[in-house]
Amino acid sequence: MSAIRIGILGYGNLGRGVELACRDNADTELVAVFTRRDPSTVTPLTDGVAVYPADDLAAHQGGIDVLVLGGGSATDLPEQTPACARLFNVVDSFDTHANIPAHFAAVDAAARETGHVAVISAGWDPGMFSVARLYANAVLPNGADYTFWGRGVSQGHSDAIRRVPGVVDARQYTVPVPAAMEAVRAGENPQLTTRQKHTRECFVVAEEGADLAAIEKAIVEMPNYFADYDTTVTFISQAELDRDHAGIPHGGSVIRTGSTGAEGRNTHVIEYSLKLDSNPEFTGSVLVACARAAWRMAGEGMVGAKTVFDIPPAYLSATDDAELRATML
Amino acid sequence: MSAIRIGILGYGNLGRGVELACRDNADTELVAVFTRRDPSTVTPLTDGVAVYPADDLAAHQGGIDVLVLGGGSATDLPEQTPACARLFNVVDSFDTHANIPAHFAAVDAAARETGHVAVISAGWDPGMFSVARLYANAVLPNGADYTFWGRGVSQGHSDAIRRVPGVVDARQYTVPVPAAMEAVRAGENPQLTTRQKHTRECFVVAEEGADLAAIEKAIVEMPNYFADYDTTVTFISQAELDRDHAGIPHGGSVIRTGSTGAEGRNTHVIEYSLKLDSNPEFTGSVLVACARAAWRMAGEGMVGAKTVFDIPPAYLSATDDAELRATML
Repeated sequence: MSAIRIGILGYGNLGRGVELACRDNADTELVAVFTRRDPSTVTPLTDGVAVYPADDLAAHQGGIDVLVLGGGSATDLPEQTPACARLFNVVDSFDTHANIPAHFAAVDAAARETGHVAVISAGWDPGMFSVARLYANAVLPNGADYTFWGRGVSQGHSDAIRRVPGVVDARQYTVPVPAAMEAVRAGENPQLTTRQKHTRECFVVAEEGADLAAIEKAIVEMPNYFADYDTTVTFISQAELDRDHAGIPHGGSVIRTGSTGAEGRNTHVIEYSLKLDSNPEFTGSVLVACARAAWRMAGEGMVGAKTVFDIPPAYLSATDDAELRATML
Repeated sequence: MSAIRIGILGYGNLGRGVELACRDNADTELVAVFTRRDPSTVTPLTDGVAVYPADDLAAHQGGIDVLVLGGGSATDLPEQTPACARLFNVVDSFDTHANIPAHFAAVDAAARETGHVAVISAGWDPGMFSVARLYANAVLPNGADYTFWGRGVSQGHSDAIRRVPGVVDARQYTVPVPAAMEAVRAGENPQLTTRQKHTRECFVVAEEGADLAAIEKAIVEMPNYFADYDTTVTFISQAELDRDHAGIPHGGSVIRTGSTGAEGRNTHVIEYSLKLDSNPEFTGSVLVACARAAWRMAGEGMVGAKTVFDIPPAYLSATDDAELRATML
């Protein structure tokens, strides 16, 4: 069987994560990277991968089985995913939870028009965390859900700090509160405020001579991003940031506690947790598994937008169904 | 929409777990229990549920949408599931891992002959643990799998102890070795022997005057069941057993550690864990979610044997797809 020919649109951290995942999956082959930058400035890690301008996508319809989108949810994907779903089977990692229904509808219409499969919102949250929530809710209808994130780097919060006057660079870690997690795991069903669930740790490089107290105040009081959390700010040098905070780790836990039975009800705790050294590489690996599923669904004549909720788990695997049953069930 | 009409074959611990789960799922209705015992001796917990002899199953084809099998894997299900799949859509919890391919083939042939859907090997292992293994393998192709069970009651091992001469009653707990779990979670990829992964704790009620040393020796040296483990035997009274060991808790963890990236590879840890106060009630809850999926698949014209690997996660849920995307993705 020939490998699934993968294209990547957007060659940032996530695009490179997808590229690295293709190397680890022998049934996939990365054939092209598409970029809005000047293609001559982009050098893939993998020999022999062509780089084309994003504007040339339509010319490569025949050469790509699934296009994986590496763009961001704020402005890239709302435009790109519907447009690309008219040309290719696609996979994206759209993660603005509140806008998923509208994104799904736009992508679904485009994909159906042209007979493609479009998997949206793949990754780990949304993605693997979402299926963990769904399975847990399906088997424990009476219960409560909790999602904790971290300890990990939030790119959005790091960017927000970088926009504070006097800040040169920053890295923000989201950290779950251990006591809150323990109360949930113990089945205590706590009602938790935003502040009780997570703390935020900020490592900040300031301009020489900047007003550190003013920077700290601007960060901890920033609405939406930090005001609702216990936030700590630590000023460090650029050298320390580069040395100690170069990685992009993340992770977290989805926990559902629920009960079954008659009067003397029994309690159950389901927990799915991830501890990731590299957020973009793990996300890229999920996207490639979803690309495999998209290709299989397209081969069976399915069309339209899909999410991890619609994908039979076996479709994500390179192993055939009989072997999966024999070895993994 | 009318409720999914559920029948149960076999009214032991698991059958009662299925009954209790039907009460917690408003879109299902338990309509009948079938038993090999004298039906007059069986009283369901739920008012209005009819009890029929197992031999009368064929007479109730029109009244049941999905039949859930509560029997055991050793002798019941290899006969019952294929036979019942000729009459109904069915769900079973066949859990003899080595015989799953043969069971799947037998059930698949029967279900296809008559146009039914038959979900086999549902529960938590096989079942929820299996999908956890599959997702983790699909997204981290380079890695190692570990499954730990417990702390929980093993019915099979408890039964084995009860067959030792001089034993009146017994309860056996399977217990994971904490140091082994920690090494796995730390990404150390340890090679673990059977003995290094789990210990076995046995609480035994002996006949008056029995040779306790002989009983202990018979247990700890029992091949297949205990010889390969560090096993402890504690003699207690029947009253203590009834007071302290009446529950049927279980659980465990599926862990996959893997790596992604280029030379300096990044490590990731995926863990799915269950802590269950009642093994049969949780298993019954999974079976009812799978019954819902079986009914939906049958409604779409699918036929044949299926496992959790083949079921789109959304099919397990009573919530419609759009609502799932809006609230759980």
